[in-house]
Amino acid sequence: MGTPFSADDYADRLERVARAAVGAGQDGLLITPGPDLAYLCGYEPPTTERLTLMVVAADREPVLIVPRLERPGAEHCPGASHLRMLDWTDGSDPYEVAAQALGGSAYAISDSAWAMHLLGLQRTAGGIAYTSMTEALPMLRAVKDPAELDRLRAAGAAADRAFEEVVQLPFAGRTELAVAADLARLLREFGHDTVDFTLVCSGPNGANPHHHAGERVIADGDMVVLDFGGLLEGYGSDTTRTVHVGEPTTEELEVHDVVRRAQQAAFDAVEPGVPCQEIDRVARRIITDAGYGEHFVHRTGHGIGMSTHEPPYLVEGEQRQLVAGMCFSIEPGIYLKDRFGVRIEDIVTVTDSGGERFNLTTRELTIVG
Amino acid sequence: MGTPFSADDYADRLERVARAAVGAGQDGLLITPGPDLAYLCGYEPPTTERLTLMVVAADREPVLIVPRLERPGAEHCPGASHLRMLDWTDGSDPYEVAAQALGGSAYAISDSAWAMHLLGLQRTAGGIAYTSMTEALPMLRAVKDPAELDRLRAAGAAADRAFEEVVQLPFAGRTELAVAADLARLLREFGHDTVDFTLVCSGPNGANPHHHAGERVIADGDMVVLDFGGLLEGYGSDTTRTVHVGEPTTEELEVHDVVRRAQQAAFDAVEPGVPCQEIDRVARRIITDAGYGEHFVHRTGHGIGMSTHEPPYLVEGEQRQLVAGMCFSIEPGIYLKDRFGVRIEDIVTVTDSGGERFNLTTRELTIVG
Repeated sequence: MGTPFSADDYADRLERVARAAVGAGQDGLLITPGPDLAYLCGYEPPTTERLTLMVVAADREPVLIVPRLERPGAEHCPGASHLRMLDWTDGSDPYEVAAQALGGSAYAISDSAWAMHLLGLQRTAGGIAYTSMTEALPMLRAVKDPAELDRLRAAGAAADRAFEEVVQLPFAGRTELAVAADLARLLREFGHDTVDFTLVCSGPNGANPHHHAGERVIADGDMVVLDFGGLLEGYGSDTTRTVHVGEPTTEELEVHDVVRRAQQAAFDAVEPGVPCQEIDRVARRIITDAGYGEHFVHRTGHGIGMSTHEPPYLVEGEQRQLVAGMCFSIEPGIYLKDRFGVRIEDIVTVTDSGGERFNLTTRELTIVG
Repeated sequence: MGTPFSADDYADRLERVARAAVGAGQDGLLITPGPDLAYLCGYEPPTTERLTLMVVAADREPVLIVPRLERPGAEHCPGASHLRMLDWTDGSDPYEVAAQALGGSAYAISDSAWAMHLLGLQRTAGGIAYTSMTEALPMLRAVKDPAELDRLRAAGAAADRAFEEVVQLPFAGRTELAVAADLARLLREFGHDTVDFTLVCSGPNGANPHHHAGERVIADGDMVVLDFGGLLEGYGSDTTRTVHVGEPTTEELEVHDVVRRAQQAAFDAVEPGVPCQEIDRVARRIITDAGYGEHFVHRTGHGIGMSTHEPPYLVEGEQRQLVAGMCFSIEPGIYLKDRFGVRIEDIVTVTDSGGERFNLTTRELTIVG
């Protein structure tokens, strides 16, 4: 792992997405700071309130528009040699510069582009229909190349090591925040550059799927949902294990086992050609059949790559098919209000014949002290 | 410092901005995750690709629309008691829910709202004219209340302590990245919750105003620009000092003194009623008169609060006037390509009669080892 992407890697991606844009009925793509831009040229500008915009179209050289004072940094980005660069100065209208780089009448724009910039473009380059990337080209970054898979595998392995260490530490008598701080430290220790979330949801807090971590003191008898991840070499980790402080009850064991079986069945269903929603349905069916359907309140998974949440989404209604190289979470859960919750999550990639997990820690209920 | 904002603080802000919206010819405001939402209800949702949207209008109760699975967290945000909450589930159309909460025909939307969400709103609630917050109500969060000023003052003091410590450390023979890591550690040590940037720009790298920090080994005779900051209790620090390794040359001393005088004159010009652009002009005039005008390649400053860059911007063309309670950077610089750069930056607030600096470390050229 760890070989930097080359200018040619970026050139290949630019060419591929320009073709994909045509295939999606677009004249081009408007790429703004964030994972789309990092993916296509390796550039992460220091500010986002100033317009930085890449225009990618099949019939011409990609253009990167940058604020003049950020141009030296942009010129040193790994993909710079394949880009034509334009700049604008503080006090001038950046959308005028952008409008000159546009041609045609239909562009897809990065989901997380600032509304302020989109409104500026709509005002200045008015004859153009704008569509969000998720609507026009949702799978822009969904299929990972081998170098990307290596990075995601490394991020998953590092998160696994953090889990294996954290369960050696005491839980009972410490706050959720204290355990969360340990998880963050361990993620960094095992190579993460950023830690994006360390959810520690004990007892009744586990019944809120997006509880973070708070002052609650973990007690003997608690179920504890641990959901954590961050970026390692620019690619994300995201894994969840539910552990128990001391001996679990029969009901706790049963609920955990339902989630474990749902997660396993969903994983077993992964292969090229399967509609995304089918993975969700497989997990949901098992949980519903066990009588907990109303307590599985979220989709089964989300794509992951340079961002932690990205297409493909494993959700009812998503009929697009899995393709080898896609990477996403499989994370069914059961949430029993005011009592406890269970979630089990692995990052999985689609192989030519099935799936491969990037998280390999035990999915059996781990007992902690 | 450090008293949490109360539900009443948020209610006051909501009422004030609803009135301001009317004054700006808007039917209401669409507030999305980020500093605007944190400012108005203290809520920071765990995801942004799912629509979270607050609708604020003068004639009715504010509404917060959230994904259902994030609702428990939203209901516990500090400002929740003054909000009506609506939710939507994965797989349904969040923009339909939002459209029902809108009335009238003109809304200002948070600058950093995702383009994907704006496009969804434009598609679903089509009869509405959307304007960016910076265009419609740029000063929404610009005037700070006393509790906010306390937080910004504390962030500035912590950054100052980091500077005072870092200049005790050796510079010559270490990489920029090593010094940047020290700065980040010190910012955290003195209370920062997040470190957003630690620019260490030595020798010729100082001539690039947005160089970050790299593998260059700092040498005796280098000018080094240190520009660093982050968030402390949700409010930003941002200060720059230029230091010199060993004895400076006459030219280096002169350039530094021009920047120091420009920064001082700009600070002295701060008082209520002065147009923002005048502060830029004052600094620029001194640098231009000294013969370095073409080397001052950026605006003089930017507002700061819950985000590091926000209105007011001290830039030519910004004719709005300073108001007591506004906070912004004053940061003139001179950049001599391939040679060195100098920048000096303080955060300043407008008082009833002038300005107050939140950064108080020496603005004379500090010699480091």
